[in-house]
Amino acid sequence: MKILAFAASLRRESLNKKLLRLAIDIAREAGAEVDHADFAEFAMPIYDGDMQENQGFPSGALALAERIKAADGIIISSPEYNFSMAGTLKNAIDWVSRMRPIPLQRKTGLLMAASTSMVGGIRGLWQLRVPLEGCGVALHPDMFALAAAQNAFADDGSLNDQALAGRLQAMVSSYIAFGGALAAARW
Amino acid sequence: MKILAFAASLRRESLNKKLLRLAIDIAREAGAEVDHADFAEFAMPIYDGDMQENQGFPSGALALAERIKAADGIIISSPEYNFSMAGTLKNAIDWVSRMRPIPLQRKTGLLMAASTSMVGGIRGLWQLRVPLEGCGVALHPDMFALAAAQNAFADDGSLNDQALAGRLQAMVSSYIAFGGALAAARW
Amino acid sequence: MKILAFAASLRRESLNKKLLRLAIDIAREAGAEVDHADFAEFAMPIYDGDMQENQGFPSGALALAERIKAADGIIISSPEYNFSMAGTLKNAIDWVSRMRPIPLQRKTGLLMAASTSMVGGIRGLWQLRVPLEGCGVALHPDMFALAAAQNAFADDGSLNDQALAGRLQAMVSSYIAFGGALAAARW
Amino acid sequence: MKILAFAASLRRESLNKKLLRLAIDIAREAGAEVDHADFAEFAMPIYDGDMQENQGFPSGALALAERIKAADGIIISSPEYNFSMAGTLKNAIDWVSRMRPIPLQRKTGLLMAASTSMVGGIRGLWQLRVPLEGCGVALHPDMFALAAAQNAFADDGSLNDQALAGRLQAMVSSYIAFGGALAAARW
Repeated sequence: MKILAFAASLRRESLNKKLLRLAIDIAREAGAEVDHADFAEFAMPIYDGDMQENQGFPSGALALAERIKAADGIIISSPEYNFSMAGTLKNAIDWVSRMRPIPLQRKTGLLMAASTSMVGGIRGLWQLRVPLEGCGVALHPDMFALAAAQNAFADDGSLNDQALAGRLQAMVSSYIAFGGALAAARW
Repeated sequence: MKILAFAASLRRESLNKKLLRLAIDIAREAGAEVDHADFAEFAMPIYDGDMQENQGFPSGALALAERIKAADGIIISSPEYNFSMAGTLKNAIDWVSRMRPIPLQRKTGLLMAASTSMVGGIRGLWQLRVPLEGCGVALHPDMFALAAAQNAFADDGSLNDQALAGRLQAMVSSYIAFGGALAAARW
Repeated sequence: MKILAFAASLRRESLNKKLLRLAIDIAREAGAEVDHADFAEFAMPIYDGDMQENQGFPSGALALAERIKAADGIIISSPEYNFSMAGTLKNAIDWVSRMRPIPLQRKTGLLMAASTSMVGGIRGLWQLRVPLEGCGVALHPDMFALAAAQNAFADDGSLNDQALAGRLQAMVSSYIAFGGALAAARW
Repeated sequence: MKILAFAASLRRESLNKKLLRLAIDIAREAGAEVDHADFAEFAMPIYDGDMQENQGFPSGALALAERIKAADGIIISSPEYNFSMAGTLKNAIDWVSRMRPIPLQRKTGLLMAASTSMVGGIRGLWQLRVPLEGCGVALHPDMFALAAAQNAFADDGSLNDQALAGRLQAMVSSYIAFGGALAAARW
């Protein structure tokens, strides 16, 4: 099973990037081939229907679409902004969703969030499910939200809390089995 | 693959019941074994934590849980009330979610709605995804919303609109493949 | 300004009832007349369209509607179940929304939640906004979610955390001003 | 009462721009002073926390914030993308929400959508409420969703359907009363 993984943040010191690295390690141990992308590789302007018609898709959106098409599934770690999904990620989904066939169709996905708050970004993930499922992505029902993430990581990048680390391990492993089963099926 | 199917409506002449029947026929043709339930079989009071502690679960909630446990997946056709999910169905989910292990965990699901409005109940389905996915159900990303349902059915119960009938056929078939793949996997 | 206040829980020792009492005290100090209801007064069966047609509305739904009609606004403290609104409360809204004119139309509201989790029930409140706003209620944008509520109250019923108590005071006071301005206007 | 009004679309022939013009006419007739903005005036890059720290806010975000601050309320007509809010608009909200005090706090708002589909963009508006209310905007509970908008307008820009035109008239007028009452209050 081949997975595209990225954090939906442009910050260099992004907590979502740290969380994503842990998920990627688990996915690889579980046998998945992971394409670890940086969201900055998909730089694109805000969506403009006239620009699409006159100039075609921006290169960042085309790059993202190619990487999605080459994968069976996607792992995204995304910040929450204003109790909702990141506008940056929604903008990327909006561009990609205009292509035919929609590159996200019949892919699988796992969503995660890291946040400095006690709520851990989970509200944003629930909103993020809507456009992804609307584009045909089968999302794993469980999601991982890391609260107080600024204090959650040890120096070696692992999680300080062993119970949380175990939950992450179980969830990513479950996703690899879930995504593998669906990648092998025609549905 | 074994499926529990019910319409989340107590009305005898429910449009959701008519829509459900079509989905059940397609599921059976696709090889699924379908347990066709009537929501009235799961009559239960509104949720009360004290009642649960003192008297245990009501028989309707226990019956629903048993039927869910015996199935690999669930097909639900549900009305939309007030731009949101039916309170009746949410109440049933609330009762069942209190049992351990949660009977809905690792099941799959397909959601449908019939409505007399032009919007077809799709807003309610998007809200309904939340508690089901929160309980661990892997929902098929596509959903079927039948608008103006009071005029949608022929005398033999089929859909008048052949394009819509084809979409329903494709969606239920896709769900059977989706649900079958996940039922055969450990995830 | 006249307010109907209730906790959407049937439990005797409900944390939402404790939180509601604090809000009622603040509302009264701010000059509001508060009708403090117990959700058990509005006992009603789960929604059934046939029952409505054949037997009319159940007495609990009629009682709730009368109390809403007599008020300018509503304060609700509601538990979160399965990342979503309480099915019990949604069921009550569904019954009341069938009456004409809809008793909730042009009322104002403030939503609160108490929860034993660290997330504090805020996800359920965001979902609860939808049917209430769909029924025409102008909800105060801010909401109060009390996390770890089992440890939040002192013996006299006040909040241990003074900063939180201050936030509750400010939010309820703001709602009284908000609701008062809208109650005095024709909109 | 002073209102900022814009369509969250960059397209020149945007249906949302046509719908917005009708709302602006009604608002002015009802006595409001309307600042009719073009979303292109607020051109800004996608959100980047590092950019904010190192270079400050982009000029488009600052311009939008100034226009919001100068107004009591906002009327937005926004397209729906992927069953959710426009990423472009969410991106703008994300930038503005980083400023202190948050320019949107204690403003009022009315949401509209025009769409070529039969669903009319209403799903996107329900999602859009979340970040706006999260930023402290008091939104009018009613929303206006124009379905099949490509056929909805007469040559003079008015709506062909008189019943719909009446509903728009009533809703915008109600918003002006709602927003005026809240603009005059301290809440």
